[in-house]
Formats: sequence, C-alpha cells, structure tokens
Amino acid sequence: MNYLFAPQTKTYESSAVRDILKVTQQGNVISFAGGLPAEEIFPIEEVKIAYEKVFASGKSSLQYGLTEGFTPLRDAIQSKMERKGISSTPENILVTTGSQQVIDLFSRIMLTNGDVVLTEDPTYLSALQVFRSYGANVVAVNSDEHGMELEDLKEKMERFHPKFIYIIPTFSNPDGKVWSNERRQKLLNLCYEYNVLILEDDPYGDIQFHSEEQYQPVAAYDIHQSHVVYTSTFSKSVVPALRTGWVTGPVKIIQMMVKAKQMNDLQSSSIDQQALYYLLRDFNLDGHIETIRKEYYFRMTIMKDYLDKVGSDLFTYKEPKGGMFMWVEGNENLNTTTLLSEAVKNGVAFVPGAPFYVDQPKYNTFRLNFSHSTPEKLKIGMDRLIGVLLKPASV
Amino acid sequence: MNYLFAPQTKTYESSAVRDILKVTQQGNVISFAGGLPAEEIFPIEEVKIAYEKVFASGKSSLQYGLTEGFTPLRDAIQSKMERKGISSTPENILVTTGSQQVIDLFSRIMLTNGDVVLTEDPTYLSALQVFRSYGANVVAVNSDEHGMELEDLKEKMERFHPKFIYIIPTFSNPDGKVWSNERRQKLLNLCYEYNVLILEDDPYGDIQFHSEEQYQPVAAYDIHQSHVVYTSTFSKSVVPALRTGWVTGPVKIIQMMVKAKQMNDLQSSSIDQQALYYLLRDFNLDGHIETIRKEYYFRMTIMKDYLDKVGSDLFTYKEPKGGMFMWVEGNENLNTTTLLSEAVKNGVAFVPGAPFYVDQPKYNTFRLNFSHSTPEKLKIGMDRLIGVLLKPASV
Repeated sequence: MNYLFAPQTKTYESSAVRDILKVTQQGNVISFAGGLPAEEIFPIEEVKIAYEKVFASGKSSLQYGLTEGFTPLRDAIQSKMERKGISSTPENILVTTGSQQVIDLFSRIMLTNGDVVLTEDPTYLSALQVFRSYGANVVAVNSDEHGMELEDLKEKMERFHPKFIYIIPTFSNPDGKVWSNERRQKLLNLCYEYNVLILEDDPYGDIQFHSEEQYQPVAAYDIHQSHVVYTSTFSKSVVPALRTGWVTGPVKIIQMMVKAKQMNDLQSSSIDQQALYYLLRDFNLDGHIETIRKEYYFRMTIMKDYLDKVGSDLFTYKEPKGGMFMWVEGNENLNTTTLLSEAVKNGVAFVPGAPFYVDQPKYNTFRLNFSHSTPEKLKIGMDRLIGVLLKPASV
Repeated sequence: MNYLFAPQTKTYESSAVRDILKVTQQGNVISFAGGLPAEEIFPIEEVKIAYEKVFASGKSSLQYGLTEGFTPLRDAIQSKMERKGISSTPENILVTTGSQQVIDLFSRIMLTNGDVVLTEDPTYLSALQVFRSYGANVVAVNSDEHGMELEDLKEKMERFHPKFIYIIPTFSNPDGKVWSNERRQKLLNLCYEYNVLILEDDPYGDIQFHSEEQYQPVAAYDIHQSHVVYTSTFSKSVVPALRTGWVTGPVKIIQMMVKAKQMNDLQSSSIDQQALYYLLRDFNLDGHIETIRKEYYFRMTIMKDYLDKVGSDLFTYKEPKGGMFMWVEGNENLNTTTLLSEAVKNGVAFVPGAPFYVDQPKYNTFRLNFSHSTPEKLKIGMDRLIGVLLKPASV
C-alpha cells in the first residue's frame, strides 16, 4: 500500500545526530558526536533514593496527574527560576518531556504555513526541523562574538515580521557561543519595539566554566514576563533518562501550551516528576552541578590541547566558556561529511557542521562533544581524529 | 501583549474531563468522571522492585536512549502482540508517552487541512480534539450494537475519501461498546477495498469481564500489517504514572512516526521503560490483569444495581462487557450538563456525554466510571447521584 502522508512530512528528516549515534553505539568507535553527559558522574545512588521516596509515599503516586506537572515540582522549579532572576509563578510553569517538547509545543501553538522564525546560524538542528515541520520559513540572523548583530536583526524584523526569535544565548549548541549581557538587553528592547516573542533555549546555562562571568537569561531582563518564553531541562544537570524539562513565560502562552500538551500526551511521567522533586529537595544539586562544571572543563582542556598541537593553520575554534561542545572550522576545502566516514573507519566520530546551518552550510565545520568521553577515551579518540585530519588526502 | 496564536489553536479546547477532574480533586466529591484505574490494586511493591533493578543495572541506565524505545521492552511488547494474534517485529513497534501520543503523532504525519477522519459517535473526545487540531473534518459513522454500520461506512468512504478511520472496538470510551468479530473483519475488508487506514485504539481490551467471549483486535485480522495502526497502553493494566504506551503497524508508518517523535520529545522516559521491561519479565502481569477484571466487574455490578433500582423509565444503559465505563441515556428532556452542577453540589461527579459526540450531541447522556472508586465510595456516590436524578426538577 502507498501511504499518503501529510504534505508537511516532506520537511521531516531523521536527525543526523541520532542516526550517527545509532552507528557509533556499535563497536569500538569513540564518539564525540552526540550531546551526551558524562555517565561516570551520574548521581545514581541519590536518584535511586529519590524513587524509593516516591513509592514510600503510597499508591496514589502511581495515579494519573495533572497536565501542568506535579505541583511540588513546579514550586521547586519556580524557586530555581527565581535564583536565576526570572520571576515566575507555578501557574506559568509547565513540566514537559525534556525541552525538546517545549520547542515542539510552542511551535505548534504559534506557527502556521509561511510564518517566519529568526534564528542564529548555526543553531540547534532539531529546532530547525521542528519549525519547518509546522510550515515556517527559517531566516538566519548574522551574529558576531557577542550575539546577534542588531542592525541585521532589526532589518529582518521589519522585513519578515517574524513570529518569534529562537536563541540559545548561553553556551550554544552547536558552537558554544555565549551572548554578552549588553546584547541580551538590546535584543529584548528590539523585541519590545517590534512586538516579537523570544524562545530562549537554555539547556546548558548551568554548565559554566568560569564563575567570575555572570550571564543572566534573557528572560530575567523581561521583568513583566511578556515577551520571553524560557525553557530548560534537567537532562544535563541531573540525568537524561528522567526526560524532564520545563517552560515558563507569559501565562496566556503557557495555558495554550497546556492545551496542546493535553492533546499531545496528557502528561509526562509522574513517577519521574515526583522523583525529581525529592531529588531537588534532598540532594545538593548545586554541589553536583559544580562537579559537572569542573569535570567538563577538565575534559574540554584535554580536547583543546590536542587541537592546539595541530596548530591554527589547519583549524580555528573558540575555547568554550561552558556547555558541552567545541565548534571547529577547517580549511576552506575541507568537507567534514566526507571526513566523517574516514573518521568512523578509524574508530572516532563527530558531527559534521552543515545540518546546523539554516540555508548556507559551511561544509568545513564540525562539532565535537567533550562531556561524554572519559579523559582516557578522549585522548585515544583525539589521537585517532588528529591522525585522520592530518592525512593529506582529507584536508 | 496580544499573542498571535496559530489559526489551528482555535480548535483547542481544554478537555472537559480534565477540567472536571481538577474541580473534583478538591473536597469531598466522589468522582465517577475521570477514567482512572483503581489505586488499591496498583502493584506498588512490584513496581518498586522493578525500579530497583533499573538502578542496579548501572549508570548507563540513566543515559539518553533511542527514540524508538528501550529495545528489550520492544521485544517484550512484540511477544504481547503475538499473544493477541498481531504479528509485528520490534522494527515496527514504537514506545510512546501513553497511547494519547500515538493518536497525536499518527494524526501529525497523516492529516492536513480539509482531510476527513471517520469515527464512531460518541467516541474518545481527546481524539476528536487532536484530529481537528490538525485541520481535519471529523465525520461520524452510524453504529449499531455490533459496530459501525457497513452501508453507512461504505457510503461515507466513497463520499469523503477519508484519510483514516478511528475506532475503539473493544470496550469503548465512552460507551463501553464491543464490536462483533464479524463486523471487525468486514470493516477491514472495506478498508482493503477502498485503501483506507484504520487507527485502532485499544486501551481497555485486556479488561474483559467474561472470558468465554473472545475479541481479536482488528489488527490481528490484518495479517500483512498493511492497513491497521494499533495502539495500546500500560496505563490501565499496570499503572498510569508510568505513561507508557506503544504503537505497531506498517513499517513505513512507524518509521515516519519515529521521525515525528524525534521532533516532539526525542524519546519517552527511559527509566520508566526499563522498569516496565523488568516488570513484564518478572511479574505475573496476566495474573494481575485477572485481579483487575474481577474487581472492575464487581464494581460495575454495584453501579448497575443502583441504576436498576431506579428503573428503565428514567434511564437506559447497556451492561458493559469490559472496560471502565457505563454509558447512560436519560429521558429526552434531561440536560446532563445542568445536572452536573447539581450533582457536584451534592458531592458526586460524572461526565456529561455531549463532548463525546462528533457534531450532534445528545445532551441527555452521561458517562460513569466504575473503576476508580472503592465499593464503599461507589455506594455513597451512587446514593448521592440517584438522589439528584430523582429530584423532579432535574429530570
């Protein structure tokens, strides 16, 4: 039978990152491809105790819950938001299956065929796919090292009347970039002027290497919670398998997202939400995040040292100030998609940069994840990668 | 700020069932409204042990998993499907956040503005909402006690060229109906003839009161897995808080749904999926389902006895052969939406039937859930309900 899929499925692509993950889960390949956190420092004992508390609380813990999420968890998230300078109430917090679901639900309630979304370039490729799946046209805004260039942004706001702007201002995926505080404020001012919403995606904000620099979420500047929809997740700071993220923003938007979530899946796992609540209540999460920061910084420096040894005539990259990724640009004639097959043959994987671009891919870029591999594996993998990179044929 | 939501949000309504649930969670109201299972028989000790096994299996159990779902769980689901006569492979099984997510993802990949979906009438109201949110027009097919009427179905297939037919053939929500085996086969034959897909929603199929009657899922008749997309869930047979359902069907459709799920939430909770796998492996789930059947049958008969006492001049209903609901039709001039406010004042709640209808609501119908309340509460609640129903003003 020939199945007549809806026209919007033409925009669907299987995520390149996921497909590569599948390949690299087999065999001896050391993968710098996925955005996976370090398993060695997962607080498994504390997670286990948190689940025990759920079951000790009685059988009603296993019943259906509210679409909005487990109320005590929403209260705890509100406190967390407050510490980041974002003044929300439990009424405008919705718990989701990771922040991916926030990107999807927000797009679902906002976008229709022909709408425009402005993004950084490169940016999170799954977000690009989601926007396009709802019929939106994605338009890239030029950036410098401090964030989007305001002139270009203003010009594109006037020209395209975008439905919203999608940004990952703190330790971005894929390029690890962090926006200056000044640029955050000015972006928001422009959004006030042109009445444009911002979707601020902040999965990595907690993973900051240098405590002397402070970055406030753009949502913290939006003191009346009128223009910024903010999402983050516990996947990077606690464990991914919990699949728990959240969104906060204007009440009317959150309420509409709740309706969309009712249709989408009724509610996320309430066992996980309750466990997370006990974990936030009884476990020193801030101390754990400090451990993550130190370990990821250490792993990043190992990777950096290898790249430095090769020298800047072959690659350029910026040392990330946080997050999980290094973004590398090779010589103009390097094709990193070709390079990947060569690399996998030699037991190492990364993600080619092209799919992260909106419409003018740079084929000489790639993304390296430094959080997932142990220091030992990092060294072996970087040895293999450098070996492949230095082969004259491939550069 | 005035938020410009996408046009499809005009079809969104907050689920009536959910909203009532919120009200009745407070105070002393005995609720026959929600579709909640009995908490008293949740196998909490076994669930707890299953989670312990997850954490004992090591830290990698807390890492990201595959979008398709935890592989050993998919294998276990395949065996379960085989016992129901459905021959699938793990490749065409996708694990989801409940079967609600299946309805949503399938609609997402199939429907576009103006498409037609054929349904029973009344049917699951959240499914109606989902179909409409993707721009579909829902057309009701006439039914008798054995299922959809084939003449009407055929006529509507020819006239509307539907994208698919949505059915709950076994112990339906809301009306508890079960299709005859003959009608199942004939429905499928028509779908072969007109090349129309079926979405078979089967959350209640395991909760069968009389073992001498056997109902095969429509998917079991579709021996080449070409026309039926089948979904079920562990929410009713194990516990709802796990939020784990699944879908099986034609490989091309499942693959497209996997892509949609990647965009939607990457994957469902893998801690829950692993726990469920251990539960299916080590726990006598069939024995537990037997306990559920007996208990729900017992509770149903209590409710039935009360209704019988009132007499059939005021109401008609059919004794359900399984599931969780009784569907009651009052005299023509009864308005059950008005009745609900009166009932809640008197400490009992139900769901008015109107929202379950496609376009010609019967305002004199309502749905009673008999699974959630203990026998004691059932009696108190039915006393209250009968009291309200017998007040001359309200009937």
